[in-house]
Order: sequence, then C-alpha cells, then structure tokens
Amino acid sequence: MARRIVIIGHGPAGMTAAGYASLTDREADITVINSGGHDIYHPCSLPFAIGGNLELANVVEQARYRKVKLLNGTTVTDIDPDRRTVGAVGQDGELTFNYDSLLIATGTRPMVPPVDGTDLENVHVLKTPEHARGIISSAETATKAVVVGGSAIGVETASELAGRGIETVLVEMAPELLPASLDPDISKNVAAALEEEGVRIVTDAMLERIVGDGHVTGVLAGNEEIGANLVVLATGVVPEIGLARSIGCDIGEHGGILVSNLMTTTVSGVYAAGDCVDTIDLVSEKPSPMRLAGVATRQGRVAGVNMAGGKASFPGALGSWVVATHTFHAGGAALTDGRAAKDGFETISVKMQSHLRPHYISDDRITIKLTALSDTGRIVGGQVFGPHGVSETVNYIALAVTSGLTAYDLATTDWCYAPLASECVNPMASAADALIRRLSRGR
Amino acid sequence: MARRIVIIGHGPAGMTAAGYASLTDREADITVINSGGHDIYHPCSLPFAIGGNLELANVVEQARYRKVKLLNGTTVTDIDPDRRTVGAVGQDGELTFNYDSLLIATGTRPMVPPVDGTDLENVHVLKTPEHARGIISSAETATKAVVVGGSAIGVETASELAGRGIETVLVEMAPELLPASLDPDISKNVAAALEEEGVRIVTDAMLERIVGDGHVTGVLAGNEEIGANLVVLATGVVPEIGLARSIGCDIGEHGGILVSNLMTTTVSGVYAAGDCVDTIDLVSEKPSPMRLAGVATRQGRVAGVNMAGGKASFPGALGSWVVATHTFHAGGAALTDGRAAKDGFETISVKMQSHLRPHYISDDRITIKLTALSDTGRIVGGQVFGPHGVSETVNYIALAVTSGLTAYDLATTDWCYAPLASECVNPMASAADALIRRLSRGR
Repeated sequence: MARRIVIIGHGPAGMTAAGYASLTDREADITVINSGGHDIYHPCSLPFAIGGNLELANVVEQARYRKVKLLNGTTVTDIDPDRRTVGAVGQDGELTFNYDSLLIATGTRPMVPPVDGTDLENVHVLKTPEHARGIISSAETATKAVVVGGSAIGVETASELAGRGIETVLVEMAPELLPASLDPDISKNVAAALEEEGVRIVTDAMLERIVGDGHVTGVLAGNEEIGANLVVLATGVVPEIGLARSIGCDIGEHGGILVSNLMTTTVSGVYAAGDCVDTIDLVSEKPSPMRLAGVATRQGRVAGVNMAGGKASFPGALGSWVVATHTFHAGGAALTDGRAAKDGFETISVKMQSHLRPHYISDDRITIKLTALSDTGRIVGGQVFGPHGVSETVNYIALAVTSGLTAYDLATTDWCYAPLASECVNPMASAADALIRRLSRGR
Repeated sequence: MARRIVIIGHGPAGMTAAGYASLTDREADITVINSGGHDIYHPCSLPFAIGGNLELANVVEQARYRKVKLLNGTTVTDIDPDRRTVGAVGQDGELTFNYDSLLIATGTRPMVPPVDGTDLENVHVLKTPEHARGIISSAETATKAVVVGGSAIGVETASELAGRGIETVLVEMAPELLPASLDPDISKNVAAALEEEGVRIVTDAMLERIVGDGHVTGVLAGNEEIGANLVVLATGVVPEIGLARSIGCDIGEHGGILVSNLMTTTVSGVYAAGDCVDTIDLVSEKPSPMRLAGVATRQGRVAGVNMAGGKASFPGALGSWVVATHTFHAGGAALTDGRAAKDGFETISVKMQSHLRPHYISDDRITIKLTALSDTGRIVGGQVFGPHGVSETVNYIALAVTSGLTAYDLATTDWCYAPLASECVNPMASAADALIRRLSRGR
C-alpha cells in the first residue's frame, strides 16, 4: 500500500514538505489540507504589493503538483494520533484522512495588541493577501498612516506607505527599531534611512489605544496622539498550536511546538515544521522563536524527506534575516552584542564601513558589525547595513558562524575580486582584520 | 634602533605589506622601492579604461602614507643577503639600503608569444597604465581588433573594445575560453554572452604570427587570417624572479618563488609575496600559479605583519576568481570537474540555474555548477555564471571549500531571505540539494 502523508498547512513549510515528500517517494499518497483560499502566496512580499511596486496578483500563485492533492478552504477539526486519522471540513462537507505520517505546518496568526480600537475601520494586520487588499483599499483614500511595530514587516510596510505619498509614522515600543535583531548603533542607520524615505519614527512608545468613531482617526502611543486614517498593526505573530496541543505535543517556552532535528514532535507519527515550531538556535543550542520563511522552507524539506522514508536532518538555525526597502537593506545572523551579553558570552566587536566595489567604480558602501568571542576570535554574529550586498554579507556571516570560523580565518579567506563585481579587499576581510587588531589589544 | 624594512615593488602585495608593516610597528623604518612611475595603479581595472567607461586617470592613485618612504622610478640592481643590503638606481643616482627584513614583491611581466610581428605598431600587451594609454590611442582610429588569449583580462578587454564599436575578435588556443578556470559547459555561457556583446570568438586557434608592414594589419591564428588594425596580447604573465633567483631563493615548478605560510623565502631575512610567488593550493596542497590581486593582497598583509614583528599566517588559497563585463559575470573557486579528474579526485557535480530573487520581483538567474567528493559530499569547487551575484556566490563556495562543508551542510545553511534582496531558497541551497539527490543515486 502507498505511504499516506497528510500535511496541515500550505505555507513555506507545508508546501516544501509536500514537494520533497513527493520527490522522495514517488508512489506516496500525499494530501495537503489548507485552510486558506489560495494555492500559494508569499507573505513576505505583501508589503511591496501595498506600495504598488508589485501587483498583489503576482504574490499569489497556482501550485503545480503532479501527484499531491491540495485541498484549499479546508479546516482540520480534529486529529486522532492513535488511529492516525485527521478530520476536516471543507466545501464538500466533512472529510476523514488516514495517515502514516502527519505534518503540522500551521504557521502563525498576527498578534493583535490588547487595546481599544483594534476593530475600527481602516485598522489592519498584515498576513494574508486579503489583509493586503484591505490595506490597499484603505490606502487609496488615506492621507496619514501609522504602522505599529518596528519589526521587518513594520519597517517594509512603513517604507511602502510613505512611498505612496502617505504621511507615515512608525511606532515602536522599544528604544530603537528591530530591537531584537540589531544593536542600537546599527539600528540608527535603519532609522535614518527610513526617515530619508519620509517615514517619521516614534520609539519608546507603547501603543495605548487606537481612537476613532467607526473609522480610525488616530492612535495614542507613548504620550503622543498621532492622527491617522490608516493603521497597520505589525506587532508580531503567535504560533498556531491549537491542533498540536490537542493531541499532546510538547510546546516550547517560546510558544512553538517542540521538534527533534528530524522534525518529529513528541507524538508518534506526527511531524511539525515552520513558524509553528520553536527552532534550535545553533549558537545558544536552545529552542528559540524564529519565525522566518527561509527556516520554515528548510524545515519543510527535512520533514518532507523524512516523512517519505528518506533521511535528512535539520541542525538548527541562526536566525539569519534581511529587511529590504527600495533604498536600503539591513540584516544579520546569530548574536548581536546585546544578545551575546545577555547570553553570557564574552565578545569583542567592530563596526566598519567599506566600499562594495573600488571607490573609482562606485561609491556604494556597506556597514558591517562583526562580533567574535574574546578568547578565540570565533565569529558568533554580525549585522549589516547598506544599499545592497547586505543579504550576501549576512550569508557570509552565517557560513562563518556555522563553520566555526574565526576572524583570522576570514582575513585569509580567498574572496574573489574583479573591479566591476567586488572590492579587492572584501568588506568582510576588512572587518575581520579590524577585529584581529582589537583582539590583539584585548578590547 | 628602528626596525628597517625594505619592500621591492608597490603592486597589491608590496603596497599592502607596507601598510600592515607600518600598522604593526609604528616605529619601523619602511622603504618601498618601486620601478614604476606611479604611486599606485589598479591593473585589473585597466580594461575598463580602454572601453572608456572609466577614466584612465582614476585607475592611478596617490599613496597616502604617513611614515612609509615610497621611491618611484627606482630599480633594484642587487641584493646582498649576507650584509642585508639592497642596491638601487633612481633619479638621484645610486642608493644603498640596509634591511632587517626584505620583501620581494616584484609581480609579473606580460608574456609575449614567440611569434613574428609582436613589435608592429598597434600591437600591445596590457599590464600598466602606459600600456592602456597605448591601446586607447590605437583604439581611437582602429576599426578591427584582435585580442589574443581568452583569459579574464582577454575577455574583459574584448568586451570593452567591442563596446567602443570596434569589430572585435577574441582568439584562444584552447577549445574554449578560460580553459584553466571553467569546464566547457560553463565556458559556453561566457562565449555566448560575449558574442551577444558583439565579440567574435575563435577557439582552437594558436597564434601563428602577427602580420603587417610597420603597422599591424592582421593576425594568422589557426588556419585563419584575421584582419586587425589593433592587437592586444593577453597571453599570460611570467613571474619576475630575477632578483630572487640571484640571491638563491628556491623557485617553484610554476616559476614563482617558493614561500612558507609566513611568506618567508628560503633565504634568511627575505620574504616574498604576490604574483611573483607560487601559492599553496588549499585543495591539492601543492604550490600553484595563482596570479590574482586578492591573493597578492592577503599575502602582502601576512608578510607586512610578520616583517614588522607581528604574527600572521597565510594558509594558502583556492584561486577564487571572477571576470565581469557590463552584461555578465563569471567566476569560480577551487576545483573544476576537469581539474578534479586530472588531480585524481572522485567527484560528482551538478549544474543548475536559479532565480537570484523571487521570479515575480526579477527574472535574473544565476547558473551554479557545484562539485563535491563522491563519497562524503564535501564541496571541492564551483563555477558560477550570471548577470550579477556571481562574486558573492563564488565567495560562498570559497567559504564552503575552506570550511570543509558538504552539500548536506549547504542545504541546511541558514541563508537569509527578503523578496527585494534574495530568493527564499538560495541558489546555493538549490544546487546543494540537487547534489544531494545525485549523491544518493551515486552518480
């Protein structure tokens, strides 16, 4: 009998798992149960549809499976892990599926802050194409927008709204933007670049309430009342773990399902992957809340291969991330100085700006902050800001951290060079070298 | 007494050594003896000055040293390694320098093929700004150009001459362009892209002679006579080892000075770095002829630090390289399939094309060929072709080879993602995954 694989959810993890399961066992009977109405959509691209730089229709795609059954608009109602069945309800009524392996890839839902006024008209969250359509519709007549939450999605959404000519304010409760991902010295670059794009930034400002009368007219944040006829709440996400919890899967301290490096849960026959799990951080070696499409995709691959009888392992992740607007990119991998101090690592760091190509070819410069252990010079994280070349530099840092490379290794790495492509001394080598000098001075 | 450091040559290695020596020992007495007339020039950028996309004046720079004495137009006549003296002759007549440490960073000279007609007017080599000025002057009236040699400099020069509207033919004696650096299947991409730029390519064609009467009128290559009123010989370089040989430095089988990983030669007190040395290949672990500015710079750093009493080590290199024109980039690191077979490695490789960013953001694609050991999946080399993003991908490959990463590691590496910056599944992860499937099939 063909192996029966059931996948709940068709985001990056579920979709990738289905593809790899079908590649790994071409005879497998694979069913994906998707509560949403679209085959595929790309949540990280939704901000750009809001700005009008990308057609919303392009963020939605048709799945092209040969053998996988994809059931949209279908909601799982219950799982029986002993009988290995899944109950669901869709357009055709109630359905029951038998499985050998089940994947829970239910993702997250947007966190709505517990304040008054979140139900006013023209107040939105941003997670699905429907949310984006709502924002676009509000933006057509809006003159003043407030984006609450200086996360990646908040930064990109504020950039796009300002790009539409809407007077835009970005509100963040921490003292700086992207507080979990950047040290203050690099975060400053992001704030300055966003302001250059026309976004006003209000930090240290907790959202108190959203005000209006039917329609939103403003927000009260910190001590300021900010007028707005469009509000986007980018205040984080919550893992969707209801089903996992109902069958007794262990849940981690960050609210995600606990999984092994094979992506198995603590319930036999049940896997989980993507934003609904807590992911092992490769540096701290502890479960951590990484809700990133790239991580979800790689976890989906491992789950899909293993569910179909193959062999793959997910070692953990670093939380490599990048945020990109039309004028700047920022990103990082592994530890910031702040996280390092909190986690008890003794580190030294340098921050430096370097040309991406020879100065007589282009004046484009990138800022790299590189953090290493004080004793060995081992690279444990980095942060990057620039007009482009940021994602690639984040990837160098990720490779260095994963491989246990030191500043000494990066200074002698065989970086390539051609004037039209790159600088002779790669910015990473420059940063590594500055780190070496600091390491030799012991500070 | 201050430490006396003498450096012969002010190319990438000599210049970098001077800078690092002065950083490492701020009291050192550092003299650079430079036979050329310019403080600094950037040889790899000369092709772009020929095309007119870059002012030749911008490729030449003034050195800004605080403490280093730089003597241009000064030629070393002899070295006495026992008395530790260097004799030289310059504008001010004969000079003698005492040294504690001496660096030989004499670089290379262009190889002129031993055929008739290389002394005709409008026949040039390309190594110095003077050469470039000669080519630019010839190009002002030239209608037909032949570039001999399908190396990086030949490819870029042909691209730039065609870009000026000159009917340009690139002649290569091997069956394909960049034969030492690319397998035929990737080299084909380079040839097609160059042809798209208007360059005619003639391979399998040994240069027989250059014809003309005072002025060049054509070249005879293979069985073809190709008309030309401008010829550029990009037929390789020869290490300048006369001085090193005169004092008994051991010379490697590729014609470069043999050095340790501290950049010392076999003669006490004498270091060597840059294009004039044979460099340890990190994969074969043997001395090899890498004549690359990036390698020279990194060797110069190590030599400079060590000569000034610091401690640095150069582990070897992979030969990471990239060639870039205004329409395409190509590059690679470590082994090609061809080199792997010749060196006795059992390898498996994949070639695949992937989007650099999501297809609905940009259709730009990159081709990666990735080569791994058949038994362990350890990455031993890669080749890359695309419109951009090539140098970065070459650097990923270099980091992977240096760190001993396998295809399995690259498939689970935490690559970052943001739609405007990068694809969710990094092209390297896609290539690694294809390699894993091939490894599991054993072919």
